[in-house]
Amino acid sequence: MKNVAVFGAGRIGRIHASNLAALPGVQLKYVFDPVPAAAAELAQKHGAQVATIEAALADKSVDAVAICSSTDTHSDLITRAAAAGKHIFCEKPVDLSVARAVACGEAVKAAGVSCMIGFQRRFDPTFNDASRRLAAGEIGAPESLIITSRDPGAPPVEYIKASGGIFRDMLIHDFDVFRWILCADGDEAAWLSATASVLTDPAIGAAGDYDSTAVTIRTQKGRLCQINTTRRAAYGYDQRFEVLGSLGLLQCGNHTPTEVVQWNAAGIHADKPEAFFLQRYAAAYRLEIEHFFECLQSGAPFKTTVADGVAAQKLADAATLSAQSGQPVLF
Amino acid sequence: MKNVAVFGAGRIGRIHASNLAALPGVQLKYVFDPVPAAAAELAQKHGAQVATIEAALADKSVDAVAICSSTDTHSDLITRAAAAGKHIFCEKPVDLSVARAVACGEAVKAAGVSCMIGFQRRFDPTFNDASRRLAAGEIGAPESLIITSRDPGAPPVEYIKASGGIFRDMLIHDFDVFRWILCADGDEAAWLSATASVLTDPAIGAAGDYDSTAVTIRTQKGRLCQINTTRRAAYGYDQRFEVLGSLGLLQCGNHTPTEVVQWNAAGIHADKPEAFFLQRYAAAYRLEIEHFFECLQSGAPFKTTVADGVAAQKLADAATLSAQSGQPVLF
Amino acid sequence: MKNVAVFGAGRIGRIHASNLAALPGVQLKYVFDPVPAAAAELAQKHGAQVATIEAALADKSVDAVAICSSTDTHSDLITRAAAAGKHIFCEKPVDLSVARAVACGEAVKAAGVSCMIGFQRRFDPTFNDASRRLAAGEIGAPESLIITSRDPGAPPVEYIKASGGIFRDMLIHDFDVFRWILCADGDEAAWLSATASVLTDPAIGAAGDYDSTAVTIRTQKGRLCQINTTRRAAYGYDQRFEVLGSLGLLQCGNHTPTEVVQWNAAGIHADKPEAFFLQRYAAAYRLEIEHFFECLQSGAPFKTTVADGVAAQKLADAATLSAQSGQPVLF
Amino acid sequence: MKNVAVFGAGRIGRIHASNLAALPGVQLKYVFDPVPAAAAELAQKHGAQVATIEAALADKSVDAVAICSSTDTHSDLITRAAAAGKHIFCEKPVDLSVARAVACGEAVKAAGVSCMIGFQRRFDPTFNDASRRLAAGEIGAPESLIITSRDPGAPPVEYIKASGGIFRDMLIHDFDVFRWILCADGDEAAWLSATASVLTDPAIGAAGDYDSTAVTIRTQKGRLCQINTTRRAAYGYDQRFEVLGSLGLLQCGNHTPTEVVQWNAAGIHADKPEAFFLQRYAAAYRLEIEHFFECLQSGAPFKTTVADGVAAQKLADAATLSAQSGQPVLF
Repeated sequence: MKNVAVFGAGRIGRIHASNLAALPGVQLKYVFDPVPAAAAELAQKHGAQVATIEAALADKSVDAVAICSSTDTHSDLITRAAAAGKHIFCEKPVDLSVARAVACGEAVKAAGVSCMIGFQRRFDPTFNDASRRLAAGEIGAPESLIITSRDPGAPPVEYIKASGGIFRDMLIHDFDVFRWILCADGDEAAWLSATASVLTDPAIGAAGDYDSTAVTIRTQKGRLCQINTTRRAAYGYDQRFEVLGSLGLLQCGNHTPTEVVQWNAAGIHADKPEAFFLQRYAAAYRLEIEHFFECLQSGAPFKTTVADGVAAQKLADAATLSAQSGQPVLF
Repeated sequence: MKNVAVFGAGRIGRIHASNLAALPGVQLKYVFDPVPAAAAELAQKHGAQVATIEAALADKSVDAVAICSSTDTHSDLITRAAAAGKHIFCEKPVDLSVARAVACGEAVKAAGVSCMIGFQRRFDPTFNDASRRLAAGEIGAPESLIITSRDPGAPPVEYIKASGGIFRDMLIHDFDVFRWILCADGDEAAWLSATASVLTDPAIGAAGDYDSTAVTIRTQKGRLCQINTTRRAAYGYDQRFEVLGSLGLLQCGNHTPTEVVQWNAAGIHADKPEAFFLQRYAAAYRLEIEHFFECLQSGAPFKTTVADGVAAQKLADAATLSAQSGQPVLF
Repeated sequence: MKNVAVFGAGRIGRIHASNLAALPGVQLKYVFDPVPAAAAELAQKHGAQVATIEAALADKSVDAVAICSSTDTHSDLITRAAAAGKHIFCEKPVDLSVARAVACGEAVKAAGVSCMIGFQRRFDPTFNDASRRLAAGEIGAPESLIITSRDPGAPPVEYIKASGGIFRDMLIHDFDVFRWILCADGDEAAWLSATASVLTDPAIGAAGDYDSTAVTIRTQKGRLCQINTTRRAAYGYDQRFEVLGSLGLLQCGNHTPTEVVQWNAAGIHADKPEAFFLQRYAAAYRLEIEHFFECLQSGAPFKTTVADGVAAQKLADAATLSAQSGQPVLF
Repeated sequence: MKNVAVFGAGRIGRIHASNLAALPGVQLKYVFDPVPAAAAELAQKHGAQVATIEAALADKSVDAVAICSSTDTHSDLITRAAAAGKHIFCEKPVDLSVARAVACGEAVKAAGVSCMIGFQRRFDPTFNDASRRLAAGEIGAPESLIITSRDPGAPPVEYIKASGGIFRDMLIHDFDVFRWILCADGDEAAWLSATASVLTDPAIGAAGDYDSTAVTIRTQKGRLCQINTTRRAAYGYDQRFEVLGSLGLLQCGNHTPTEVVQWNAAGIHADKPEAFFLQRYAAAYRLEIEHFFECLQSGAPFKTTVADGVAAQKLADAATLSAQSGQPVLF
């Protein structure tokens, strides 16, 4: 039986807590949250106890921690958990600073623990199947990747101000998808050009950020990736990618709540995509936590490590710089 | 906390046990199965105990039973559970004999307990959404219904011999869908014509059954329903219906494991439907058990009662008679 | 150069005239219509002359006639054209009376001319491709066929009164599709059951006809066909079929005016099907006339003969009888 | 009656000749081609005469010319036809040199004739409908545009060497689509970044060109456009775009030869897109020539003028420069 402490009882903390509590051989032992009532409610739901971070890390019976707290606490908690000898599951990003993210990786290594970063898209059944089939050679050698990644609506401006900007906050997932899909053979980004606009809400611009972006990456092998994002798609959460290979294309569509199609005098009407990330990636969140504990059990390496977090963060930094300067970035 | 005994630890029993064990406020207390090892394995997985039927029914702390055993045990177990004052969830069908099914309904009523029949299709998110939208008037008054219901492969001939025939074993679900979708306003079947063939496996014919059917039902209000089924569709499990109304059509498509589409020199290729009923109706099974306990809690009536089971069984009997005689049946 | 006379300058006459006039080696020489202005307009458009039927048939330079006049004139015109030694393209149906249709076939045979009946659906690129692929064995042996055939709106009641009823007027095409797809190897209908209702307009019922039908046919080999039709589908003209074989399914979808899909807050919206038969079967009408002249040129047999017309008519008669009597018809 | 001379009897010349010859009120009078046999065959097919360019332009009865010859002859023929007072339909591009293209525009203006450039995609029913609906406000204000434009296979390397490069030869259409869709209100490109690779055939690289490109354009209003192209998509000719607006998305899919979908044990299989531009844009070619003559008749302006040709050419030049330098281009 693995005992786990969850740090952070917010939206994503509750998802991970529910998923890990349902796993055979896993016990949610402690919950911490700066808001005591949130911690208490989540703990009670799963028969766990509320605890401070210190207490949870001090308990020798705790094998692993799941860090689901705000981004600015990640690197501190990773470092402390590593020092306490706990295995770590940490929500993305490692840290908004590449330097601190790198330091986290070193701390983890030094402590001899393992640390998985929650890039859940790699566990989405659709995306994961495309990755598997690409690796199996179904479409030959990869040539280009088009990623469409759109949110249904922007977060509050206060959130945006602290987010590190759209490239670090939102596209971090897309940069990881780029690396996962187009660089699986060790290829790497060689040239990146980003441009961005404020088209949906001037308040986002006033906060020093963008709401619409267009990023292009060329790899060392000449593969091409284009990413388009917006903070506000009127039709909802749009999560698609298409990877072109020498023998064909793998296209990943959205998921929908139902398969009902209505035909009437106005046309043929299908469901919008799943509402937002909690719905679209419900299976992915479940599968990534399962992967975390399976790897702890088997000793197999995680699919998404601190190194992946650092690499995505570097691309986000480069994109931010490129959009601000109007110039490409070379790696 | 509701304590529950599950009778039957086979495929469907394990599904229901898992789903009900995950519900807050529900405790799986006993498992019975004629195969002791099966009962033991399922009990252990959920922290329950193995028990005889007698013992489980005699325990006053047991509130409800889930009958997941073979069809020929249903009516006996319903009657005994009702006599013991337990609420009942029973897999379809109530019984292959309409008379016995009616008797079950009377026993349940006399005992003052409630009994839900597991027509899980009514809880499928796609089918249920179509039903809701039809009721909301999105396509006006219903006029016709086309049901396509195909299995990926036939069960063993031994199963078929004891099944009551394809109309009672397989189309029972489709007859319930017909009543649910086309008779929601109290309309009823007035005329039924069925024909059937043996096209996929002569052994099915040798067992006295059919593998392919075509049923038409006209209701008292003149609405038309066509059902087509086969025991063996090479492409898998095909579960669709289309309901035409005065203002349009609601079309329910299959569900697929992923949304990956491959484009290559041979064409554009999407996933087959979910493999079989356990995959396609995974959500439905979860939602129907949730509904069972919600109704027990709130006192609301079940969506699928013994009366629904009896009504579907009567249609199955009529279809069997019609296919054998070559003549329609009037109600 | 083949010289052609077109009898009938209505909607379908104009279509055929345009299509044949555009064929290399084909000259539209005469147009006849009981409404002189209609004949004159069509003749002028294509540089042809207005002529009486007598004059057109008397002209030795005329090789072929296209009969596009009202149904009740078909058998008379076929007989006269055959007697005059002209090859004949005739719109469906041959005649509402099977006996007269048979007589037409005999007249054609006696005269040594050839006669093609305009079952244009066999020339629709989608339907024709399905037929070809079925014949090529792509889905193995055929087992069942589901035909959905719905008009966007009913014709005037006066038309319906003279139409011979929905089975002879509208389903005649579907019966031909049944024979074409499910009986390509010489199989034949063995049992037919039809039921029908008036659901869209009481005036249709007052005229002694139905507006909604459900037909089932079982063939000698046990194959099953279900046809559902309505005179009024709110979403437009719905022309689909699905043929199930031992190795899979071939599904023929509707055609749409464009491939634009709109995504918005209400869902994902695609085009309705092509508006009606002139749009949906535009290519089919073009290809069937091309086929007619190619066969005249090469001597190859037509794909759709008077015998096909007679066979479809017999099924329409049987369906009419079955719907009226409530009893199946055996062949 | 408008008399027309067609210059160029190759693939595209034959298409335009057929389409214009079928228009009421339009007469194909002359055909010229440097290969006499090609000219003769096309002329004979449509009852036209073979003529030299000089003779055709000298004939006062000729109202218009269709320039369908090789790109390097366009500017010369436009200038001569304008000087002869003929209206001009010219295939894209005007000229590989922006300066010469501008000079063509001036020559046309000075001569008082009108000149339409054959950007046929604007006449594609799908693309045109999207444009119309965007203009009608169906998705609010445009924000971004994703264009996927892929050829099924590369032309011969000799062609590529003389083509001006992939941006001028292939993306010229995409640049026109960008201007048509995203700049319909007078917005213009402000910033363009292109990158490109040789991924499908080293011979293309040896010829000094690319086979795979990724272009991003930001407009003055901050709208974002991403274009991805390849010379070789294994699955065929891929012509799609998606325009995102403040209220939703308009997505233009490929056209397919049929609507047959096959379901089998390997999955669900639909047709590949139409084979290449002659098939995909068959309707567009017909409609653009119709538009040309309608405008000549009515005096309405063409949808695609020399100015559009020049503007697209400038974007192609900028993209070529950007890809070669690795730097963005500002306008």
